[in-house]
Amino acid sequence: MIANFSIVPIGKENSLSTQVAEVLKIVDESGINYKLHSMGTILEGDWDKILRLIRKCHKRMLENSDRVLTTITIDDRKGKSGRIVGKVKSVERKLGKELKK
Amino acid sequence: MIANFSIVPIGKENSLSTQVAEVLKIVDESGINYKLHSMGTILEGDWDKILRLIRKCHKRMLENSDRVLTTITIDDRKGKSGRIVGKVKSVERKLGKELKK
Amino acid sequence: MIANFSIVPIGKENSLSTQVAEVLKIVDESGINYKLHSMGTILEGDWDKILRLIRKCHKRMLENSDRVLTTITIDDRKGKSGRIVGKVKSVERKLGKELKK
Amino acid sequence: MIANFSIVPIGKENSLSTQVAEVLKIVDESGINYKLHSMGTILEGDWDKILRLIRKCHKRMLENSDRVLTTITIDDRKGKSGRIVGKVKSVERKLGKELKK
Repeated sequence: MIANFSIVPIGKENSLSTQVAEVLKIVDESGINYKLHSMGTILEGDWDKILRLIRKCHKRMLENSDRVLTTITIDDRKGKSGRIVGKVKSVERKLGKELKK
Repeated sequence: MIANFSIVPIGKENSLSTQVAEVLKIVDESGINYKLHSMGTILEGDWDKILRLIRKCHKRMLENSDRVLTTITIDDRKGKSGRIVGKVKSVERKLGKELKK
Repeated sequence: MIANFSIVPIGKENSLSTQVAEVLKIVDESGINYKLHSMGTILEGDWDKILRLIRKCHKRMLENSDRVLTTITIDDRKGKSGRIVGKVKSVERKLGKELKK
Repeated sequence: MIANFSIVPIGKENSLSTQVAEVLKIVDESGINYKLHSMGTILEGDWDKILRLIRKCHKRMLENSDRVLTTITIDDRKGKSGRIVGKVKSVERKLGKELKK
């Protein structure tokens, strides 16, 4: 399955990049396949691995903030893998054209 | 913490209420405090209890569908409980008025 | 169609109820059918009416905050109305049981 | 502001890439700056331009489907632009390291 997630601390300054960097450090060192974009981070793996990693990131954010909003969107399709790249390629193939990515 | 979640099977008929009913049966029997609304279900409890329940619902939906989209939004605020009712009441208090709920 | 939305200011105090109350005042006075719950507000109506209302709420929140996160989930099903209540009732009917709502 | 959106038809086959390709064709021809990833598409521009484009994509999807779920997440920060690339770069700068993107 693949999952997109984002974690936002409430009651902090406008710029969140320092806190987000701490979370991405955890993701980058986890060994789980990921892709960072400007609205979240996409992970690929099984439920337990992915949710354990997001839990760790969420708890880390709570150390520096009294309130945290975490959003997770899961797309789980049987018998499919390599979907972080594959889903985008599949759309491009249907369209016969490269897209901005 | 409180969490809103919804689980949608892809590649099924337009009406999802039969599958949603099976998921709600699991939620209703879990003993975890919840509230069903027309766009999802809200749970209150700690991370492990809530995510274990959502995992169970997600896996149940996958038994009848090859592809499932699950969305989870978590609002985790230290030292606060009773928030399924409390957050709405707090807004009404600020407004000095009862709202539709 | 029905739509769930929530608007969160970043860089503010932990308690958001005062700002949320201002947004709900706009919703309550709009004449659009709505339902407030602890993780957002559900609206029912057509695209233009609903998005115009959410735009107004979003812009109002930006008056008091330099950064605002707004999340909108739309469920649009042809030929259906009264769905804020109807979707929940349909699940209860399938289950043959009243649920917490 | 930047906005992430995804549009999913309910009651269709498991593979959504053909319908998604039609939507991306609209996005690609719009002239609005975008970035496709495996869980959605990110747009940058002002509220009216972005929501008009998402409306067009949503209505297009409804032509071939009786039920459509559309999710929109907006991050609106005063005085900032170039954020599709800029937000990611800012996290990398804080971390002193390039990330997978």
